[in-house]
Amino acid sequence: MKRRTFVQTATAAGMGTLAAAGMAPQLKAEESKSAAKDVTRKLARYVVAAKFDDLPAPVRKEAQRTLLNWAGCAIGGSRHETVDIAISALTPFAGPGQATVLGRKEKMDVLHASLMNGISSHIFDYDDTHLRTIIHPAGPVASAILALAEYKPVSGRDFLNALVLGVEAECRIGNAVWPNHYDIGWHITGTAGVFGSAAAVGKLLGLNEQQMVWALGLAASQPVGLREMFGTMTKSFSPGRAAQNGFTAALLASKNYTSSDQGIEALRGWANVVSTAHNYSEITEKLGQTYEISLNTYKPFACGIVIHPTLDACIQLRNQYKLTAGQIERVELKVHPLVLELTGKKTPQTGLEGKFSVYYAAAVALIEGAAGERQFSNKLAQDPTVVALRDRVVATIDPAIGPEQVRVIVTSKDGKKLEKYIDNAIGSVKNPLSDAALEAKFADLADGVITAARARKVMDLCWGLEKLSSAADLARAAAA
Amino acid sequence: MKRRTFVQTATAAGMGTLAAAGMAPQLKAEESKSAAKDVTRKLARYVVAAKFDDLPAPVRKEAQRTLLNWAGCAIGGSRHETVDIAISALTPFAGPGQATVLGRKEKMDVLHASLMNGISSHIFDYDDTHLRTIIHPAGPVASAILALAEYKPVSGRDFLNALVLGVEAECRIGNAVWPNHYDIGWHITGTAGVFGSAAAVGKLLGLNEQQMVWALGLAASQPVGLREMFGTMTKSFSPGRAAQNGFTAALLASKNYTSSDQGIEALRGWANVVSTAHNYSEITEKLGQTYEISLNTYKPFACGIVIHPTLDACIQLRNQYKLTAGQIERVELKVHPLVLELTGKKTPQTGLEGKFSVYYAAAVALIEGAAGERQFSNKLAQDPTVVALRDRVVATIDPAIGPEQVRVIVTSKDGKKLEKYIDNAIGSVKNPLSDAALEAKFADLADGVITAARARKVMDLCWGLEKLSSAADLARAAAA
Repeated sequence: MKRRTFVQTATAAGMGTLAAAGMAPQLKAEESKSAAKDVTRKLARYVVAAKFDDLPAPVRKEAQRTLLNWAGCAIGGSRHETVDIAISALTPFAGPGQATVLGRKEKMDVLHASLMNGISSHIFDYDDTHLRTIIHPAGPVASAILALAEYKPVSGRDFLNALVLGVEAECRIGNAVWPNHYDIGWHITGTAGVFGSAAAVGKLLGLNEQQMVWALGLAASQPVGLREMFGTMTKSFSPGRAAQNGFTAALLASKNYTSSDQGIEALRGWANVVSTAHNYSEITEKLGQTYEISLNTYKPFACGIVIHPTLDACIQLRNQYKLTAGQIERVELKVHPLVLELTGKKTPQTGLEGKFSVYYAAAVALIEGAAGERQFSNKLAQDPTVVALRDRVVATIDPAIGPEQVRVIVTSKDGKKLEKYIDNAIGSVKNPLSDAALEAKFADLADGVITAARARKVMDLCWGLEKLSSAADLARAAAA
Repeated sequence: MKRRTFVQTATAAGMGTLAAAGMAPQLKAEESKSAAKDVTRKLARYVVAAKFDDLPAPVRKEAQRTLLNWAGCAIGGSRHETVDIAISALTPFAGPGQATVLGRKEKMDVLHASLMNGISSHIFDYDDTHLRTIIHPAGPVASAILALAEYKPVSGRDFLNALVLGVEAECRIGNAVWPNHYDIGWHITGTAGVFGSAAAVGKLLGLNEQQMVWALGLAASQPVGLREMFGTMTKSFSPGRAAQNGFTAALLASKNYTSSDQGIEALRGWANVVSTAHNYSEITEKLGQTYEISLNTYKPFACGIVIHPTLDACIQLRNQYKLTAGQIERVELKVHPLVLELTGKKTPQTGLEGKFSVYYAAAVALIEGAAGERQFSNKLAQDPTVVALRDRVVATIDPAIGPEQVRVIVTSKDGKKLEKYIDNAIGSVKNPLSDAALEAKFADLADGVITAARARKVMDLCWGLEKLSSAADLARAAAA
């Protein structure tokens, strides 16, 4: 493998010395191209070399929290009709029962298990969020490597390392094209996620640097997901298919299936094709010094992150003033622009559509004092009391309001104005869910799917993953 | 299913009558949105309703030619290391041996067989070309439906109808975004091809209109392929994965896995996300009146279509003047801009890279008098005589030269200038390969892979497909 470290650090003075030795022209040419040339390779080199022992303790801890939250979401979503349909449609063509579909009795080949676990972990829109990019990092990565762990032995330490590296790859690549890529209409969890899966699976398959470069190139060729699909079953297809595609990319690369050496940064590579702007330093700088998984967040509410400040405020107002729907004349929301862009549906007809309606979400939170999966049922979406209150919710954009903030003003029928301002919504980086709250969320999701004893075991395995000789124990414990 | 036919045909006068009846406002609103709203649905409705009996005889014939050419390419490419690697990497995870990998002994589940046949049919870059979009139409479509035909009974007539409809869907969608989509850097065979596979498989699965709409939406979410991958194994991954993705989309939709109703035309739907311009009338107008498969072409040379005029000219010059490499001082090519954009590699190191070098291609054609797969071997790409002549080839863009044209001027060592102008290269729409030439190409590709008797049988089955009760006979005859 060609090493470019010296060239990259060569100063102008150093180049002069080299020129005197007759070596400069070639080096100069290489250096001038290196900025746009080595993005994929630098990332691949880092992923191939990175060791579990290098991970700071808080990063390891956040990886456990990420995994626990993901497993809870996957188990909780596993009985949704979306998963039923996907399994029923694809089982006739699936391979040997190598890997667990979490929360279910079926086992499937590792590629299909990755797809199913990715779908089920996202179906409630309750999974983790990298707030800067709105990527849901765990779905594409954990779905793939947990399936792999049932096919070949993977220690808990190696598993956590791969999880961290997969999240690192997808979020850094997401950072590099955010926000243009998302604004165009891509579902970034599926488009960046495929790199996360490829990197993490590739790490566990022991790819060398060149193979990892090819795996990333094959990943670049298979982006998944359009924002147009939000509110349909195809939204949760994105992280599932990203897991499966990245897994496939790593498998092919492991046998030396070739792709470009510059899949991300070439003129007609991924970043130029799927975005109108990019900053490659987001991918190549400070590798091994910063960890995107440290910025991961976990939702207290079963819907898109942009409504969370509103839900936090509505639930606080309800509890503080013991509000009922009948007392409320009008609800005003002062929100960040993304809220209306992403969740502006005025008259959702189903629970799933309700997740894309800040109007419905505010109403149901004021009435129920909660916004878990139960609050996004088809029944409540059609409930006359909820619908009536929903239609009295008004949302306006306020330039002073950030994405983690909201100002909610409830006008009661007797003319009082009750106001709540949220600076950092519960579940955000600055106001994170505690371990106990994560466990409560997990238990709630697992309730009715696996036994409480099983749920406890899965959580304990997540917290103790570093000590496991086989990460597959986790998958097996999470089966129905 | 909501029917909009009446609304779409309502005249202004008719609307006035409806207004008098108090019905106009709603209808008017629907009509005003319909232009940007019903693209996916109109295409789906057409595909669902279209019958084999509606196909004009020349369209049926062209479908046979398309199929024969595709089968030859898939058989010919089936022993390439790219296919070996893909099969070896993915077999441990594949399902039951439901479908033939053409030219080989292995059988795989229908999804993986689609992938493999799509890869092998494109690996030599020798497959069919829809010249307007440079889509290779058969790979994504035929690979999928031939695999399906081994899983569920499909008559020859239904097979041909699905082939025509799949090609129609992918080429119309390609027309709608060409050339912007390709210019951005997408490998259009993989990005439009997934719609072709979804439509064709969906047709054979008997999807209703709504399910077909969803299948197209799921297809829209899974584009495959970047032009950056040209010259690597990942190029041929595009039609294979497109076949597999479209097949998956149709399977999911058949079980009512939902997606958007406007996957192609929505604000954040496919066309807006993957292109900077689009013309939806290319998709919705004259459905059932024109057939894109009528515009399909078949390559006489084993490389990208843009070099074909050059190859045609070089072979004619060589034969006419009995040229040898030693007599040639210099070769000048006056070419269309796409030639240098797509095949501008100056110093290809492998046969595969040679397909992306008009310089190499011209040299090897002048020396060998042919440009079949043998002429793009690694050995010839390194041959000193070929390399020396290659380095004496100069190509310049000439604004007067169209994509199917070239002017080649050979300067001999004794100072003579020999010139050849090609107006319509052999294999183009206006100068098509004859059935006999197609058979000769097939036989050449099949040579050494299947017996001559088998090759004859496969060709006869293609020509006689309309009469077959089971299209699967074709797949079985094409096995090793």
